[in-house]
Amino acid sequence: MAVPSDCEKLKAEIVAQGDVVRKLKESKNTPEVEKNAAIEKLKELKALYKEITGEDYDGGARKSDKKEKNRAVKKNEECKQVKSQGDVKKQTKLGIEVSKDEDYSEWYSQVITKSEMIEYYDVSGCYVLRPWSYAIWEIIQEWFDAEIKKLGVKNCYFPIFVSQGALEREKTHIADFAPEVAWVTKAGQSEMAEPVAIRPTSETVMYPSYAKWVQSHRDLPIRLNQWCNVVRWEFKHPTPFLRTREFLWQEGHTAFHTAKEAETEVYQILDLYAHIYTDLLAIPVIKGRKSEKEKFAGGDFTTTVEAYVPVNGRSIQGATSHHLGQNFSKMFDISFEEPDKGGKSYAWQNSWGLSTRTIGAVIMIHGDDSGLVLPPRVAAIQMIVVPVGVTAQTSEEQRKMLICKAEEITDLLVSAGIRAESDLRDNYSPGWKFNHWELKGVPVRVEIGPRDLANNQVTCVIRLSGEKRAISLSELAEASKKMLSEIHEKMYNKVLEVRDKHKKVCMEWREFKDLLDNKFILLVPFCGRIECEDAIKKDSTREESIERGHSAMGAKSLCIPLEQPTDPLPARCIHPECTAKPRFFTLFGRSY
Amino acid sequence: MAVPSDCEKLKAEIVAQGDVVRKLKESKNTPEVEKNAAIEKLKELKALYKEITGEDYDGGARKSDKKEKNRAVKKNEECKQVKSQGDVKKQTKLGIEVSKDEDYSEWYSQVITKSEMIEYYDVSGCYVLRPWSYAIWEIIQEWFDAEIKKLGVKNCYFPIFVSQGALEREKTHIADFAPEVAWVTKAGQSEMAEPVAIRPTSETVMYPSYAKWVQSHRDLPIRLNQWCNVVRWEFKHPTPFLRTREFLWQEGHTAFHTAKEAETEVYQILDLYAHIYTDLLAIPVIKGRKSEKEKFAGGDFTTTVEAYVPVNGRSIQGATSHHLGQNFSKMFDISFEEPDKGGKSYAWQNSWGLSTRTIGAVIMIHGDDSGLVLPPRVAAIQMIVVPVGVTAQTSEEQRKMLICKAEEITDLLVSAGIRAESDLRDNYSPGWKFNHWELKGVPVRVEIGPRDLANNQVTCVIRLSGEKRAISLSELAEASKKMLSEIHEKMYNKVLEVRDKHKKVCMEWREFKDLLDNKFILLVPFCGRIECEDAIKKDSTREESIERGHSAMGAKSLCIPLEQPTDPLPARCIHPECTAKPRFFTLFGRSY
Repeated sequence: MAVPSDCEKLKAEIVAQGDVVRKLKESKNTPEVEKNAAIEKLKELKALYKEITGEDYDGGARKSDKKEKNRAVKKNEECKQVKSQGDVKKQTKLGIEVSKDEDYSEWYSQVITKSEMIEYYDVSGCYVLRPWSYAIWEIIQEWFDAEIKKLGVKNCYFPIFVSQGALEREKTHIADFAPEVAWVTKAGQSEMAEPVAIRPTSETVMYPSYAKWVQSHRDLPIRLNQWCNVVRWEFKHPTPFLRTREFLWQEGHTAFHTAKEAETEVYQILDLYAHIYTDLLAIPVIKGRKSEKEKFAGGDFTTTVEAYVPVNGRSIQGATSHHLGQNFSKMFDISFEEPDKGGKSYAWQNSWGLSTRTIGAVIMIHGDDSGLVLPPRVAAIQMIVVPVGVTAQTSEEQRKMLICKAEEITDLLVSAGIRAESDLRDNYSPGWKFNHWELKGVPVRVEIGPRDLANNQVTCVIRLSGEKRAISLSELAEASKKMLSEIHEKMYNKVLEVRDKHKKVCMEWREFKDLLDNKFILLVPFCGRIECEDAIKKDSTREESIERGHSAMGAKSLCIPLEQPTDPLPARCIHPECTAKPRFFTLFGRSY
Repeated sequence: MAVPSDCEKLKAEIVAQGDVVRKLKESKNTPEVEKNAAIEKLKELKALYKEITGEDYDGGARKSDKKEKNRAVKKNEECKQVKSQGDVKKQTKLGIEVSKDEDYSEWYSQVITKSEMIEYYDVSGCYVLRPWSYAIWEIIQEWFDAEIKKLGVKNCYFPIFVSQGALEREKTHIADFAPEVAWVTKAGQSEMAEPVAIRPTSETVMYPSYAKWVQSHRDLPIRLNQWCNVVRWEFKHPTPFLRTREFLWQEGHTAFHTAKEAETEVYQILDLYAHIYTDLLAIPVIKGRKSEKEKFAGGDFTTTVEAYVPVNGRSIQGATSHHLGQNFSKMFDISFEEPDKGGKSYAWQNSWGLSTRTIGAVIMIHGDDSGLVLPPRVAAIQMIVVPVGVTAQTSEEQRKMLICKAEEITDLLVSAGIRAESDLRDNYSPGWKFNHWELKGVPVRVEIGPRDLANNQVTCVIRLSGEKRAISLSELAEASKKMLSEIHEKMYNKVLEVRDKHKKVCMEWREFKDLLDNKFILLVPFCGRIECEDAIKKDSTREESIERGHSAMGAKSLCIPLEQPTDPLPARCIHPECTAKPRFFTLFGRSY
């Protein structure tokens, strides 16, 4: 089976890499960069080990504390191939057992499984998207799909496989993806004559066709999109939604006659992506351009929406819209005769993508100690109706009336265009149901009890705040729509407030690291050069914390915000050793 | 590159297999079955050769006729990695160059490419679904997705990868799929410790999770569906839409407390599938159960909708809904305590799927010598508005008025809920546009010329029949809706009529083969045994035609129709050597 041999191989690699690190540390001549790289690699191997086994790599030491026990339980869920009867038929404990601030990684893992968003799977880095998370994706899809169709984009489907020849056409591009490409080499029992790669993204899959289709400028623009899966066989620590070996996304690929048309589209799409975050997911984002170091390999420039994660002050890239310039069209010969001036021209291209990572952002950013808190506009269930107050004294007739009323209220809400359901199960107590739907993050719980019945009202309980509101039935439809809208605004503003408190113009390098540690994202004067960004990352990495195993990470550039601070640019770039002039304020921070 | 070495390897295999066949034929003792199997394999190898190279395998002989030249052109399109500038920037010839009856395979290939449904791709067996075909899939998706959600089915997404352990759990099942499973063995430059398979279908991917989720009968039913890609690395001759190595489908996987609930669902889903064919695609289907030989491996029984393809009298399986019984639940331990009687029970399961093969059925069944004929309810464009009658004498003002009117009419149709577009390109003549949209199968062309303008009318031309109708603008919206509905009915009835002329109860074996050759599908008394079906297939294979390379194929059972003929069952099964009693009338025919 996969797991044991993976473990053995990994253990050996960890031991070997540990030796490398020790030797580098002992030697006085080792450059800092090389040492850090080796340490980084060791950390990654250990993280992978943990992912596979569910346990920290301990080099054979014994473990006894409670945390280790928790991990062992998790290991059971993740690693074993399939349970044999009886051994895992245990009732899942309801409720999250750790607080988000205290043990964020454990919190995340408990939330996604207990809320029924994710089931673990026996291929490392792959996860099951259960209906509760997939529904969010469907709502995002529906909205975005309609918007791009309005722009004239059409859907299509290109193969998942790509030949080695096509894959390797654009050198910069493949250099970035090659280490993560999964290769199919065998069909049934036969070795294939030539292995085929699984798409990590589809530029090289699609552009040979574009070359065939474009014969004249009249064949442009081509504006295609596909909703599909892609595979990037990463060896870093995987996290459901955020870093997975297979994920779902949409990828748009367009080709235009002029650079101007292409550039206009880049920002139109970026605006749609921003809208998904702000107006569907209730997450504020900063729009910007990626630095040279961080841009899409092979493209001219990359635009991005960046979201702030309050719990750890890290930033997460929300979606990217790339202008590829003519780099790919030259490599793949997507060309035509210029209509007026004559001569051969190459198309101007874009590609843009948004993935199921969106769901991860929702969980991380909005979730609290009781579980998920879903933004109303993407919640599969926006309001859950629960009959309450049924006791041993309640007559059968009254019980039936309550249930009947609960159904009636649900219908009323559904007719008002609200995604409402009722939970009428008689084998669970109302208390159990409250916890259940709270954990699943349903925005509003609607309680209907005998007293409500008598008063012709319901009691609405808001997940975000815990606030209770008695609402009369005659006003329920309108009040509910308003309430959901209000919850959306509050969720958005709550995150915005924390983020803005942690966003700061920083001109002085000596403040930089401390602010990072205090969960800040920093707008700094920056020259834009790759070497300088490397230096900023290296010199903002906390070596002392590497050994403690947390927040070691140096700062990356998140984006060059489209909206620049009003402060004038100072004479010097943020990095003390940089002599180049700053070109813009760039947002730096720790990042996913 | 893939192609040359594939070819060399294949040539060697063909030569070797040719020797095997010769030897078997020479020997008097070779059982017929073995000989046929060897011939079948040789044919498959040759078909694969043709697929890869675009040429018939000729063992080194020279070829000169026109058909070979056509194939060489096609080869250029299919095989080459990427064109170098100039060599394929040729204008595609408009119009289909062969008739459907004369050279069906060439016709199919021209229709799918020239109508812009398919682009060929450089990985064998994989094709690009362009927007013109993908739109049909989107319309089918939208309808079916809404219907299954009404039934309580929810969407989700399971990984594309499956571990060897899970894949091989159910033995009968894997035996069927194993030869076609694609294996990922390498990531980047590293060999993987354990290869992972790509799903050929997801029973083995999903059911380990079902086992975790089911602890009590209250956890049932589980009703999940996913829209995804699957991979079956077949070595038979691939055909776009009909047999491809990757295809898109939906797969529903459900688990119930009782057999009865599960069986009810099997037929509910089958009805939805039938509806897609009859009410969306205008294709009559026969609902039935698959024979023991043809049913889904590992399941209890398989239901199917079967459509008839007039051009060659073959039948095509439209979609299947399987009752898995408890076979998988026992293998994967999807079990629970029986609520009343106590003791452990296993869930009753179904799986059901519909694929992009639907699009292939539309093309084959409705297309004519001028190209596609799209059923109105799934056509991306139902009506195309084309301004006509602009000559050198037409004033600029009148030209503008025509264009303005065309846009107005399009808006009017769109407002009436019709998918209408206008073709206002000024670099193509109306004649070119007529051909173009005819080839693409748009159900109705709406012509608007100066005379129409004067009479406040348009001229509608129906793709199916060529019929022209002048319709006044005031009636256009209503008339169009009726017309599209009428076209749907006519398309359905046209196919139904041909099919019913070629569907016949056949009691006598001596009529069987001739009827087959005359494109009949036959309702025959049948015992249901696998050995008997093998004998029917073998003995209905025309050996003389194997050598001529067409229609050699023996008859397969298509289904045991739910609606049985009124004829009483005779005493004997159709096969002359069968001594078992017939159990039902079974539909036999040549099949895709």
